[in-house]
Amino acid sequence: MEKFTYDNILDVIAMGFDPKLTRIIIDTKNIQTLYPLYLEIAKRLTFSTAKAVFGYKPSSNIGMVGFPAIQAAPCFLPSLIEKRPTRVLIPAAIDQDPYWRITRDIAEKMGYYKPAQVHSKFVPSLELNGKMSSSRPTGAIFTTDDPETIENKISSAYTGGQPSVGLQRMLGGDPDSCPVYWYLSHFFDDGKDSFERSLKCRTGNLLCGECKSDLTTQTKLFMSEFTRRRDQAKNQVDSFLYEENPFD
Amino acid sequence: MEKFTYDNILDVIAMGFDPKLTRIIIDTKNIQTLYPLYLEIAKRLTFSTAKAVFGYKPSSNIGMVGFPAIQAAPCFLPSLIEKRPTRVLIPAAIDQDPYWRITRDIAEKMGYYKPAQVHSKFVPSLELNGKMSSSRPTGAIFTTDDPETIENKISSAYTGGQPSVGLQRMLGGDPDSCPVYWYLSHFFDDGKDSFERSLKCRTGNLLCGECKSDLTTQTKLFMSEFTRRRDQAKNQVDSFLYEENPFD
Repeated sequence: MEKFTYDNILDVIAMGFDPKLTRIIIDTKNIQTLYPLYLEIAKRLTFSTAKAVFGYKPSSNIGMVGFPAIQAAPCFLPSLIEKRPTRVLIPAAIDQDPYWRITRDIAEKMGYYKPAQVHSKFVPSLELNGKMSSSRPTGAIFTTDDPETIENKISSAYTGGQPSVGLQRMLGGDPDSCPVYWYLSHFFDDGKDSFERSLKCRTGNLLCGECKSDLTTQTKLFMSEFTRRRDQAKNQVDSFLYEENPFD
Repeated sequence: MEKFTYDNILDVIAMGFDPKLTRIIIDTKNIQTLYPLYLEIAKRLTFSTAKAVFGYKPSSNIGMVGFPAIQAAPCFLPSLIEKRPTRVLIPAAIDQDPYWRITRDIAEKMGYYKPAQVHSKFVPSLELNGKMSSSRPTGAIFTTDDPETIENKISSAYTGGQPSVGLQRMLGGDPDSCPVYWYLSHFFDDGKDSFERSLKCRTGNLLCGECKSDLTTQTKLFMSEFTRRRDQAKNQVDSFLYEENPFD
């Protein structure tokens, strides 16, 4: 198993998913199940449609052109498992939306329900603007980061504060453009704490160092528990993997 | 298993292939083995290369675009089975040549030998011009045709003969443009017989009916034995299928 695949699986398990209700599909491992679906989907998607949606270039490799049909296949897998048309709801980041759009276009022709979607927003980068991305490690906290790394990353984070303490006291900060505030308000503060924090920031009564210190403490606390659960997850991987072949 | 797949397998076995030396790969059945190779091949083939070679249109489906990488995968399978770079020789009809050409372009970059090819000519149609094709059943003798069907197809065949017996006696026929002669000379007559037949045809000493009668007799003889072997083959299918997964 690829390292990224394995790491993602540990994260999913550590988040608390129930093995009885969860089946993790790995394209390379479960291709025997996915491929017949891939063929049925691929022959209903024209190159011109896929190009209009995904913007292939002449230099794109042919695997990229075929990939949307692999990505779409799990939408119909529950129907094969249940042996009747079965509705699916896909929680995914919003950039994955085009895959489900084109899948919806062909679903009913294939005798399945259209897949439904829950769009997730991106988690912002700790750096100026942008989404958190594994290609820029300084802007992202990984579930495998040690406490010292977490501390360093948060302490170097971009904030919505002023360039100096004096200016911050005088003018106040801008929590709306501050990733540190975003993290605290989305992951740790409750609604009332969060409102008070933003008020104190805007009125110059809170310095960025204090928020960073709060976020560091909270993140380390979360991560110490998460790391424990992630270690335990190593013994549970098999019970989460999709093993059945609905065509047997 | 698809009917076409099953029928093709019976034909291969009936032709006398040795099960100890033969492994039949079915894309849908062996995709678990082929898919990792597909991915490695697909990412090395650009859309512009594949389009230049296979001439995709905007209406081509995305499965067709990815397919050359599936077709190429078995070229490298022997290397995985033998666990060292292993040469392959592909006997295939000449229209399959572009698949092996693009595979040769990437083989060495992937650490394999370039696949080598034996080009097979097409068997001509029994009708005027063209290759034998399953989409025009009247021009093709199938391995499942009964004796009466064979007789009818050959009796309706196009020949290199003249429109009337009189003209044939006077002007002679043209064996070079005659599918009946082609079949007799490639499959049944030995070299000397074949030369005599062409001479008698060209000099007006042989009528098309006689050649058709010869071909019908020979074909029925071959087919009665082939049908017997094809029936026996039904018990041998499993011993020809590729079962191993070299990645285990």
